Amino acid sequence: MNEMSTSFRCIDGGGVTSALGFKASGVHAGFRRNASKNDLALVVADAPCAAAAAFTQNVFCAAPIRFCKDQLQRVSGSSSYGSAKAIVINSGNANAATGEVGMQACANTAALAAEAIGCSEADVLLASTGVIGVQLPMHPFEDGLPRAVEALSCQGGNAAASAILTTDTHAKEYAVSIDGDAIGYPGISFTVGGMAKGSGMIMPNMATMISVLTTDAPLAAPDLYTMLKAAVDVSFNKVTVDSDTSTNDTCFLMASGEAAPNIAPLRPGEEAYAAVADALVQVCTRLARMMAADGEGATKLVDVTVKGAVSETQADLAARTVANSPLVKTAIAGHDANWGRIAMALGRSGAVFAQEDVDITMMGIPVCRGGLALEFDEDEALRRFNALDEISIEADLGAGDASATVWTCDLTHDYISINGDYRT
Amino acid sequence: MNEMSTSFRCIDGGGVTSALGFKASGVHAGFRRNASKNDLALVVADAPCAAAAAFTQNVFCAAPIRFCKDQLQRVSGSSSYGSAKAIVINSGNANAATGEVGMQACANTAALAAEAIGCSEADVLLASTGVIGVQLPMHPFEDGLPRAVEALSCQGGNAAASAILTTDTHAKEYAVSIDGDAIGYPGISFTVGGMAKGSGMIMPNMATMISVLTTDAPLAAPDLYTMLKAAVDVSFNKVTVDSDTSTNDTCFLMASGEAAPNIAPLRPGEEAYAAVADALVQVCTRLARMMAADGEGATKLVDVTVKGAVSETQADLAARTVANSPLVKTAIAGHDANWGRIAMALGRSGAVFAQEDVDITMMGIPVCRGGLALEFDEDEALRRFNALDEISIEADLGAGDASATVWTCDLTHDYISINGDYRT
Repeated sequence: MNEMSTSFRCIDGGGVTSALGFKASGVHAGFRRNASKNDLALVVADAPCAAAAAFTQNVFCAAPIRFCKDQLQRVSGSSSYGSAKAIVINSGNANAATGEVGMQACANTAALAAEAIGCSEADVLLASTGVIGVQLPMHPFEDGLPRAVEALSCQGGNAAASAILTTDTHAKEYAVSIDGDAIGYPGISFTVGGMAKGSGMIMPNMATMISVLTTDAPLAAPDLYTMLKAAVDVSFNKVTVDSDTSTNDTCFLMASGEAAPNIAPLRPGEEAYAAVADALVQVCTRLARMMAADGEGATKLVDVTVKGAVSETQADLAARTVANSPLVKTAIAGHDANWGRIAMALGRSGAVFAQEDVDITMMGIPVCRGGLALEFDEDEALRRFNALDEISIEADLGAGDASATVWTCDLTHDYISINGDYRT
Repeated sequence: MNEMSTSFRCIDGGGVTSALGFKASGVHAGFRRNASKNDLALVVADAPCAAAAAFTQNVFCAAPIRFCKDQLQRVSGSSSYGSAKAIVINSGNANAATGEVGMQACANTAALAAEAIGCSEADVLLASTGVIGVQLPMHPFEDGLPRAVEALSCQGGNAAASAILTTDTHAKEYAVSIDGDAIGYPGISFTVGGMAKGSGMIMPNMATMISVLTTDAPLAAPDLYTMLKAAVDVSFNKVTVDSDTSTNDTCFLMASGEAAPNIAPLRPGEEAYAAVADALVQVCTRLARMMAADGEGATKLVDVTVKGAVSETQADLAARTVANSPLVKTAIAGHDANWGRIAMALGRSGAVFAQEDVDITMMGIPVCRGGLALEFDEDEALRRFNALDEISIEADLGAGDASATVWTCDLTHDYISINGDYRT
């Protein structure tokens, strides 16, 4: 686990409504047949506030992504930030590969949401997750949005986090608060929190899955985007479950400023700005690791660190190749310390190194030194496999000073069942 | 299936000993405990002859690859071609990540083989396949090589092809003959044949798995390499089972010239040279498709063709991304015509195109046109899934004129079982 700085405090049961100025809810609207599975989530700020977003880079991006980019663009001239009051998310239908009909569905959804909430259509952002290539029905929004608005509450974070899930096995939420005393804002406490979903089709190339993050720190929209981009790069973008990148990956960040309504926005260079940025990295990292641990069919979180690479890019490439290798991932599912497969993946990654310089360590056990097999206690390895929820793989390429860490999970029969079982 | 030119004739039950001038054998030497599984293969030319080889580009390349490169280099000044009389292949141990001890094992093996065969050590090439990181034992060679030499026969191709298998479910052999009448060599028939193994850790970046190819056409070693490289690029390098590239991928081609002992080597530009090169492509393609169809746990061969790309490189990239996508491969295992996952994979591949220009066809059924879902008969799709051994995926990106085809297989529970089941 990453160490938490002493200036942060984890909020028990915290999530997207932990920061001041936000309410949320989740209801069953009817995108899914199963009435016990909520499928419509709403996050609403008390007033329109600064917003930023990171989106998938998949060419086949979904309609809500094109819609959000247009919305933000109209407000700020940038498709990455602007302002927003409400975020509407449905699960069960991705509204992807749906053409102009899908874009019209977005406009209609925003209009319905604006009416139900009592805000401008321009203040509504959208995200969808689910099956690709099926037109998004409107009646669940017509029916569900008024109920979702009615259900909005400062304790609604968990309901929203549950409503956005697809094959995830549990809601992913996290929040931290920052004591302002130590960073020049005595008597004030800033909070950063959020929720995320995603367990398959995950190797974000920029944003990932769907995540909504909130803070009550006062921040201007362009700074908010800078902060979000930096956090996403070191957290969600380091997760890979199956090397696939969704058409719908979206990560929103809203800043209400409600923690300190009378102060000017925090600016880059200020200690408090850095503290909020750090808190955002903490929240995103925690959510990203929850996603990896809840990868489809996963039984273990796998933490792959490559050191001694000639550049950070090469370290990331090598770590990602190991993390995406089905042979490595099935070996871990089988509790097999088969480091030869790790060596193979490093060797084909494209990273520059000499095999005789490579050291590999699994779960703290040295298994390869100087590119050669090391005798190790197989029983002890098996004990650690059984005992640990997180399996660490460390490889030192001995070629330079750069390092990178990527998170993934093991590859089990359940992944095949979840994604491949006969539809009949 | 690729159409066979009328000048080729498939040889029933043909393989690595179909060409004149080659004998082969396979015995149980003891690399594996199971005595019913042969694990030592020998292919021997009647006399030292022209030889070429293509090797893995994995940085963690195995000792026999370094040894063969050195052997060829000493003869010709190039590590890709030279001459050879014998090829020794063991299964059960890859002799990879074994350092200088592994290199010494290669030298010892060549010496033992030379003694048993009665040739120079310089004429022996080696390949190994199996577990990585374990030193190669010598006693199976000491015991097995004399028996393998004794068993050499012109009908030994199948025994050799069986002895090199690991998780493959059956031997992979193929041979064709070319009628010389039509290509300026009346009364002469040239033969090209070979064997291959490989069903996991397969996404060759140059050569692949282990394959030994033979021809009785007269060819000079440098031309032999040119011919081999061209054939490997359009066959073995188009196979991907799990995106992983072995440390041991090796493909050998030997030319005895025995079909026409008194003629000069065929030269590039001659019709007969082109005919032999074409025959080699046919043999390699057939073996490559056999490998994809026998991918670990596979129930279907999957043929992914991308058309309409701006370049061949981008077409290959897009086809390979689809072929490697676990979500696409599990959908096929589940008989699910889930083209949204194909669209997702195309979209993240890095190939340049606009989603509204994309057409996707599965098993001949149009499922997506202009980036949008097309109504199709799901029952008919299911019937085809049940009936077909080969599933075709065709995507037209609508961005250019380049195309590429890649072969893979579906991803099933058996892949997980084969690679992940507890060793305990």
